Amino acid sequence: MTETLSSAPARGMRDLLPAEVAIRDWAIAAITRTYEQFGFTRIETPAMENINLLRRGEGGENLQLIFEVLKRGDKLGKELAQPSPSKDNLADLGLRFDLTVPLVRFYANNQNSLPNPLKAIQIGPVFRAESPQAGRFRQFTQCDIDVIGMKSEFAEMELVQATSQALLALNFKDFRVRINDRRILSALAESFGFEVTQQDRVFIALDKLDKIGIDGVGKELESAGHKPDSVKQMTGFLEKFKTLDLTQLATAGSDLQVSREQLPQSVSEEVWQALVKVITAVRQVSGGAYKIEFDPTLVRGMGYYTGQIFEIECPGYSSSVAGGGRYDKMVGKFSGRDVPAVGFSIGFERIISILMEKNFKPGKSAEKLALIFEPDRDPLADVIVAANSLRMRGLIVCTLARKKDMGKQLDALVVQDFNSYAVFKGAQAEPEIKQLKT
Amino acid sequence: MTETLSSAPARGMRDLLPAEVAIRDWAIAAITRTYEQFGFTRIETPAMENINLLRRGEGGENLQLIFEVLKRGDKLGKELAQPSPSKDNLADLGLRFDLTVPLVRFYANNQNSLPNPLKAIQIGPVFRAESPQAGRFRQFTQCDIDVIGMKSEFAEMELVQATSQALLALNFKDFRVRINDRRILSALAESFGFEVTQQDRVFIALDKLDKIGIDGVGKELESAGHKPDSVKQMTGFLEKFKTLDLTQLATAGSDLQVSREQLPQSVSEEVWQALVKVITAVRQVSGGAYKIEFDPTLVRGMGYYTGQIFEIECPGYSSSVAGGGRYDKMVGKFSGRDVPAVGFSIGFERIISILMEKNFKPGKSAEKLALIFEPDRDPLADVIVAANSLRMRGLIVCTLARKKDMGKQLDALVVQDFNSYAVFKGAQAEPEIKQLKT
Repeated sequence: MTETLSSAPARGMRDLLPAEVAIRDWAIAAITRTYEQFGFTRIETPAMENINLLRRGEGGENLQLIFEVLKRGDKLGKELAQPSPSKDNLADLGLRFDLTVPLVRFYANNQNSLPNPLKAIQIGPVFRAESPQAGRFRQFTQCDIDVIGMKSEFAEMELVQATSQALLALNFKDFRVRINDRRILSALAESFGFEVTQQDRVFIALDKLDKIGIDGVGKELESAGHKPDSVKQMTGFLEKFKTLDLTQLATAGSDLQVSREQLPQSVSEEVWQALVKVITAVRQVSGGAYKIEFDPTLVRGMGYYTGQIFEIECPGYSSSVAGGGRYDKMVGKFSGRDVPAVGFSIGFERIISILMEKNFKPGKSAEKLALIFEPDRDPLADVIVAANSLRMRGLIVCTLARKKDMGKQLDALVVQDFNSYAVFKGAQAEPEIKQLKT
Repeated sequence: MTETLSSAPARGMRDLLPAEVAIRDWAIAAITRTYEQFGFTRIETPAMENINLLRRGEGGENLQLIFEVLKRGDKLGKELAQPSPSKDNLADLGLRFDLTVPLVRFYANNQNSLPNPLKAIQIGPVFRAESPQAGRFRQFTQCDIDVIGMKSEFAEMELVQATSQALLALNFKDFRVRINDRRILSALAESFGFEVTQQDRVFIALDKLDKIGIDGVGKELESAGHKPDSVKQMTGFLEKFKTLDLTQLATAGSDLQVSREQLPQSVSEEVWQALVKVITAVRQVSGGAYKIEFDPTLVRGMGYYTGQIFEIECPGYSSSVAGGGRYDKMVGKFSGRDVPAVGFSIGFERIISILMEKNFKPGKSAEKLALIFEPDRDPLADVIVAANSLRMRGLIVCTLARKKDMGKQLDALVVQDFNSYAVFKGAQAEPEIKQLKT
């Protein structure tokens, strides 16, 4: 034990210092308060799940990124005693890579004790073994709301509105909700002649539109071996749709009609009308504080979506700040009976990094005062009594031993967001509170 | 994917339903508010640490309980390609088993960006691969405060007082703080003739006093092969000390003097006086709301304590609700330079289970109303507008589709802590709010 240990966190992991935790706590409180006003309630699932659940959880590419937890004791010994131990048999648990797979298991497990529909808030850490890079971490917080048990598109309306309200509460403005329906994407791909079994790959290419442009999407589809004619129809559609000035039309309310005319007839009227209802309702209740627009190129990565999907973008920031959609076929994998479900997830880490870029400071709940004393001279119990009586007045009081260079000590207090200080003057004397220069 | 998946959480893990999360959130808010009034600030460390850190982290018996995370990709392949792969080389990460080991790494890593002293609040999940049993889980929340960088026993006074105030804020009453010093334990063991190298084992036996009694401790020490004379002196001391009626004496203020007389002369006056100062100061500031008593039989499990140690017990409950102590030698393992440190940890899960046993219900922040509508008939945007205008009045409003049996639906709302409901009557009509019977 004499060797000095490394003090860095594990690769891709972070230490959160007081200033960042204060912003995160403020954001979590603002989000939670908003969602609770909408009648959502917090639930929690464990950070670890059985590895079989995670491996089969429809996590898309996240399945490659699971942190797997080693079996223990005899069970591990048995596996390692095999002639050539298989990687897949060494783990019995894994860390959750999102909050949706655990939520669905949670719902199936506790359905009889839960409200119907369940309107759930989940805020907690998830884990992915990604290659660490700027702004991407291996442990990060997700912040989801889900409605389980409601078939009506009212659930979508409410999720979009609640998430937008939460973003407004976080001081985000003028953001844009993009909305689409997985069934519209399927109808598009089908009408352009892509094979049904190839659709997922078509969507993966389309999902890169913002990054690689229409030409890029075309090339990627071609090199994946799709029929040239199908590829041409797809890029033609994208060209045409992207040149429409829907933003202007949206103000006049005719963007949806124009959009409909671009879509193939195979898009069912029921699917389209549900989308129109959600867009129209959200526009009505938004009061112009944010926009919602139909975007047939919106894909979303996860494989489990079955209906409407949405994403929120902020002007000036490239990646989205929130995303979600309907997944009506997941609960049935556990309970044997499908239950309709929709979710919307705020990109919490993205939000925090934007707030920190903006140098945002959450307001303080109370004045923060340093009560400075001399541990070798002052009667310590009296210092505590004096601090407590200041706390009774509603102040945050941090008792600190006087340092040799008190000027330097006071400067440090300013950095730590203290408003004032007082020097302990004995049990009988009222401490004189002095403001700190900021 | 046709096979139905199991919906139970992993062994020893829990799903937390809305009612329990509400209690937990209330408790965390009460604790955090109290600690913040004392000038402590929240910090966070990741749930995973490098496995070498955890394995060498002085976690005592917790080292046997680490969940280890499998290496990935080529690194794992390389280990498995060995003739007989070693268990110890398969993992590169592990889940933290407490918040103290990570805190010390955090402090060493971020010392230059942190206030000095650091007064830290940590609330978060820790993981131990224990055999699951009633009330013991493999993931549980810990709730710690620590002062790093203060040598004076003022730190102990403040931690004991802040933790006690937090317990009072959680509606706990008449609890008893037990306090001792590791150096007193060592002096006792030494004066009874136990070998210095055997002291840790002596303390492990002594730690079981409450469970197995004085005879049990004696038998355990004997069967471990300690000298019969040393064992006899130890049990003699325990007999004598336990028959003193210190509770009565504490009121008169003479319990400390009587206790001192029982201790061997080898207990240094400095150690003893520091303990007397803490006990006296805490008694002075407690206002009789809780007790603090010297208890030379208090041990605490962890190996890293170097000075005073404490535990809090509640009348009517066997295991302690909080515990902590001074650990001045841990930071040096990382930074090469020792920094004084003291911590106090609330047994959060114990607190929650006691609150739930007592059927405690946290007060609601606002009236909770169900706005009931018919999704197939009512204009959905208007329902949202009506809900929003009720929310503007400060109500929590949960929009719910009307069920066939509305009487049954209203009964279910009562269970979910709704106060009132209203049936949507159209955009123009003011919804009529009706109270729910409780």
